[in-house]
Amino acid sequence: MSELVPLPASLKPFLADYLPTKPKNDRPFVTLTYAQSLDSRISAGKGQQTVISHLETKTMTHYIRSKHDGILIGAGTVAADDPGLNCRYREDENAPASSSIRPIVVDPTFRWHLTEDSRVIKTAKQGLGLAPFLIVKSGEDGFEAKKNLLEKYGGKVLVLDAGKDGKLAWSSIFSLLRKEGIQSVMVEGGAVIINKLLEQHSLVDSLIVTIGPVYLGNQGVEVSPGSKVSLKNMTWWTGTQDSVLAARLAG
Amino acid sequence: MSELVPLPASLKPFLADYLPTKPKNDRPFVTLTYAQSLDSRISAGKGQQTVISHLETKTMTHYIRSKHDGILIGAGTVAADDPGLNCRYREDENAPASSSIRPIVVDPTFRWHLTEDSRVIKTAKQGLGLAPFLIVKSGEDGFEAKKNLLEKYGGKVLVLDAGKDGKLAWSSIFSLLRKEGIQSVMVEGGAVIINKLLEQHSLVDSLIVTIGPVYLGNQGVEVSPGSKVSLKNMTWWTGTQDSVLAARLAG
Repeated sequence: MSELVPLPASLKPFLADYLPTKPKNDRPFVTLTYAQSLDSRISAGKGQQTVISHLETKTMTHYIRSKHDGILIGAGTVAADDPGLNCRYREDENAPASSSIRPIVVDPTFRWHLTEDSRVIKTAKQGLGLAPFLIVKSGEDGFEAKKNLLEKYGGKVLVLDAGKDGKLAWSSIFSLLRKEGIQSVMVEGGAVIINKLLEQHSLVDSLIVTIGPVYLGNQGVEVSPGSKVSLKNMTWWTGTQDSVLAARLAG
Repeated sequence: MSELVPLPASLKPFLADYLPTKPKNDRPFVTLTYAQSLDSRISAGKGQQTVISHLETKTMTHYIRSKHDGILIGAGTVAADDPGLNCRYREDENAPASSSIRPIVVDPTFRWHLTEDSRVIKTAKQGLGLAPFLIVKSGEDGFEAKKNLLEKYGGKVLVLDAGKDGKLAWSSIFSLLRKEGIQSVMVEGGAVIINKLLEQHSLVDSLIVTIGPVYLGNQGVEVSPGSKVSLKNMTWWTGTQDSVLAARLAG
């Protein structure tokens, strides 16, 4: 993993009001964050990892991670990007590399092809990150090997009952995480999860969106909720290349 | 028509490098400009006029218009918005209200329902704007009444041959405008025109995009070209509510 570039000093005051505070009783503090193109694409195509943001906004992501207990992403994004899901930002450059943020992968039907070679497992083995919590739907089976692999490195499988629609409710997922001691969670994607959470303003505390000045085109994977979503407390930061919006969802 | 709010002083230096310069011989200087939501929608739905940008970026639009010879929009947008298509910005507040920018409506099959009550005609009658040039495809007929109406107020119909695909080529449209004395044109929409021009970087000199911090939702009218479009010379301006990108299309 490459070194991060330094965090632009102006990002700390810009982000200060949007970082986790004491959570509610029934869920963690939830920050929704992602990088998009001008045309609201988070990747050039399904399953394609696409660089959109500048290195300084990449450092910003790691800085924001350093303020959270967990990073949550969907199984599709894990499959596409094979991310490390750790935090590489440290206030003191000379501090030892370590990461105390918990990767949380929402994978209802356990489709993630998790192996000893998955980057998140290798990161855990190297002591550079924690092994993930995996959230699956009750009734799924045949995942003993993956469960053992997770537990070997300190991760675990969290089983949750689906709602009447056969899907995991976000309120249930967050409630479960709160019970597991996760007081703040940063939701990083993919598009299906982002769109779903944008539509549930009562579950989201902060929104941080990086906009990279490029058009990825209409074949890309799009963020756009099912209907209008208004924001409040909006503020922008501009970097070398990107513009970043911090806001809250309006009720 | 309401008064414009004052132009934020920082917008002039921000825009300076993106305003029209001496045009090429075969076409005017072309500025592509529009306002979008975070999810790259320019309206909440087909035919719906949607306010996205702040009043100060609305003033910016009129300031940019003041630097151009023509405003070009598509017939669908005219039908949806019934816009005045004039310039209401003036350096000296006490100067008389007038507008020397030419509205140009691209309407290949002459579907615009143009009458004495169309806002652009009323604006011309009041001496607050010029009557439009209408670009139609050769071979269309039955528009004598509309042609007479335009000419009555100083506008005209410009007839252009379609290409082999039955469509008007953008290079032909711009070439025709250049011959008509239009040295700079600001293309303001709608989405079909914007997407088409984003795909033809050799025809566009400047791109100015206002991003309003709202999601209009996936039923909205979207700007997203058919494939990736890279930009260069990017710079951002941030206002009370919106972020504005000025850039050029990369070759």
